[in-house]
Amino acid sequence: MKSRVEKVFANLPAKPDVVLLANSVDPHIDLSFFYLFDVPSGLFEGSVAVARPDGALDVTSSPLEAESAELAAKHDPHVAVHVVGRGETAQAVQKLIPASATVGLNFRELTHDWYVKLTEMLPNAKFVDASIGLQRARLTKEPAEIERIRAAAKIGSKVATEIPSMLKAGRSELELAAEMEYRMNQLGASGRSFATIVGFGPHSAEPHYQPDKTKLRPGDSIVCDFGAWHRRYACDITRSFHFGPRDPEMKAVHDCVEAAQNAALTALRPGVPGKEVHAAAQAVIDASRWKGRFTHGLGHSLGLAVHDGSGGLAPNVDDPLEVGMVVTVEPGIYLPGKGGVRIEDDVVVTKTGYEFLTTAPRGYLEVPA
Amino acid sequence: MKSRVEKVFANLPAKPDVVLLANSVDPHIDLSFFYLFDVPSGLFEGSVAVARPDGALDVTSSPLEAESAELAAKHDPHVAVHVVGRGETAQAVQKLIPASATVGLNFRELTHDWYVKLTEMLPNAKFVDASIGLQRARLTKEPAEIERIRAAAKIGSKVATEIPSMLKAGRSELELAAEMEYRMNQLGASGRSFATIVGFGPHSAEPHYQPDKTKLRPGDSIVCDFGAWHRRYACDITRSFHFGPRDPEMKAVHDCVEAAQNAALTALRPGVPGKEVHAAAQAVIDASRWKGRFTHGLGHSLGLAVHDGSGGLAPNVDDPLEVGMVVTVEPGIYLPGKGGVRIEDDVVVTKTGYEFLTTAPRGYLEVPA
Repeated sequence: MKSRVEKVFANLPAKPDVVLLANSVDPHIDLSFFYLFDVPSGLFEGSVAVARPDGALDVTSSPLEAESAELAAKHDPHVAVHVVGRGETAQAVQKLIPASATVGLNFRELTHDWYVKLTEMLPNAKFVDASIGLQRARLTKEPAEIERIRAAAKIGSKVATEIPSMLKAGRSELELAAEMEYRMNQLGASGRSFATIVGFGPHSAEPHYQPDKTKLRPGDSIVCDFGAWHRRYACDITRSFHFGPRDPEMKAVHDCVEAAQNAALTALRPGVPGKEVHAAAQAVIDASRWKGRFTHGLGHSLGLAVHDGSGGLAPNVDDPLEVGMVVTVEPGIYLPGKGGVRIEDDVVVTKTGYEFLTTAPRGYLEVPA
Repeated sequence: MKSRVEKVFANLPAKPDVVLLANSVDPHIDLSFFYLFDVPSGLFEGSVAVARPDGALDVTSSPLEAESAELAAKHDPHVAVHVVGRGETAQAVQKLIPASATVGLNFRELTHDWYVKLTEMLPNAKFVDASIGLQRARLTKEPAEIERIRAAAKIGSKVATEIPSMLKAGRSELELAAEMEYRMNQLGASGRSFATIVGFGPHSAEPHYQPDKTKLRPGDSIVCDFGAWHRRYACDITRSFHFGPRDPEMKAVHDCVEAAQNAALTALRPGVPGKEVHAAAQAVIDASRWKGRFTHGLGHSLGLAVHDGSGGLAPNVDDPLEVGMVVTVEPGIYLPGKGGVRIEDDVVVTKTGYEFLTTAPRGYLEVPA
């Protein structure tokens, strides 16, 4: 198997002499840094990684994280760690990179400030965009990466399955979100992979809602969209519930969203452009009385980031799916002022179609108030 | 009082026609976006903010977050929200900015990819670095910002005070971290402000350690470094404990760190360069038998980010402290292979010195095993 560094170069149409990644201050950290350097612990603010076509990888570490970095490097003979003190980064970069090299950069995760600094550190170098190579390499996951997402998805699925038992009239959105996150961490998550969405009643109709002190009331629709980190990889799952007496319209909405998700999954296999999978789900919803109420893309790539590159299942994605891609499949219908339903699962593309990574029941669940 | 937009322009030596902020995909979001646009909910991936010298602010929002954006804009007559669909951002930018404008950008939080795109959207514009203006404006907090950090710090302090009651032999670092985060969320935090550090025994000697399944054992030193978000503002607090029978050396280490923190606080007041406050703490440690064991900067700015700009209390900070700055004060001593002690508090600089925002007891705490 190719090393990850080699995979990045193999995915670059024009080969630079090196690929350089540079982290700024949290949250402006290049997640590709952790794609190339599999270090379990540490933030690596200000660190630089220099990858070469032969698979070699040099990384700089501040003294603060040197212990973790050196331990991780022991597992990979291609990696060399350079402990660099405050203000010594320019010197390290100049040592690691020939003055007139062609340097590939990850334009999508590099701050412009770092770019300007690099042009000063290496005034004779030529800088080119290598983000496509990093992105393509990251889009199709190795088995070890899939196992991490699967472990994260197992945690998310377990908590999703437990949500009905956590629903009580008078409990707030924030309290439910806190309980869900606590259970994920107890199950071994290293935190939530994004700000947990818990929306009750009309709030469930806002796809990017953030929970507040609103209390659960009988008759509320509920959308819970959340995820866990496991060894730097994310899962992302949504389940929708109904609290208290059945609302026939919301039941029908849920059935329609489920049908849309099933249509998408039926279409999902290697070679199919992402937009066609989106279209399969949208066709189901647009053929219903909720035409136009599916207001976002069907899904996104998942990996070291929750929105992991430009692949996925949106109307603008022409790229065909490939074996090893991990995507979310998350149709939804939103009725402003009333409520919404979204069902989201994580799947890995396989030779014959797909495999679920999330495993929580997807059917309509009415929870007695 | 000046509006925040006006404060940014007032802090720019050369005035651009507009200041433009552009968010990429999470985590590459410009936190200054939320400095200028006080919207409580939403991620605003791909959104743009255009600020003008007269205080006006235009922001773009995807349809997904339009509801939150429009609600927030109602509270501020200077803000106009433009709901922009997929692929319509370039058009919106061209409408909002004159073709040959001088455009200030936040180089430190803008991806280089966005920079390249902007040069294509506005080929006749002149782009200049406005990050210094944003940073300076953000460094000195308004009373409303201080109140948010204080609220976050109150949550962090409450949980810090409760940690001794959570310590049990056999409990893992991850379990303790999960419990701390759960309690913060129950107290109203909208999540942890960074990955919680819980280190037992030798792990407490690694400043940027991340918790694992290591179990607490009698005789362990313990470092807990954590924080909460409250309405997008962070706190950051560290407390160190000792579990079980007293270790005279670690008790002496704690006393020394406490003395270093007190020395720093005594030096901390408006007009004093950050590096002098660092030096005050370092002098105490370097005069002890643990000379050289204080391996990081004394503190950093705190606000919308946990490392909020280049101010702070580090050896390279020449800038004098100003009233309204919020900084951490966090000396530590680390004995590799044995354990460490760090004490961290958040303070706001006042006319006469400083005021604590974190309030948990700072003294040495031995917890019976």
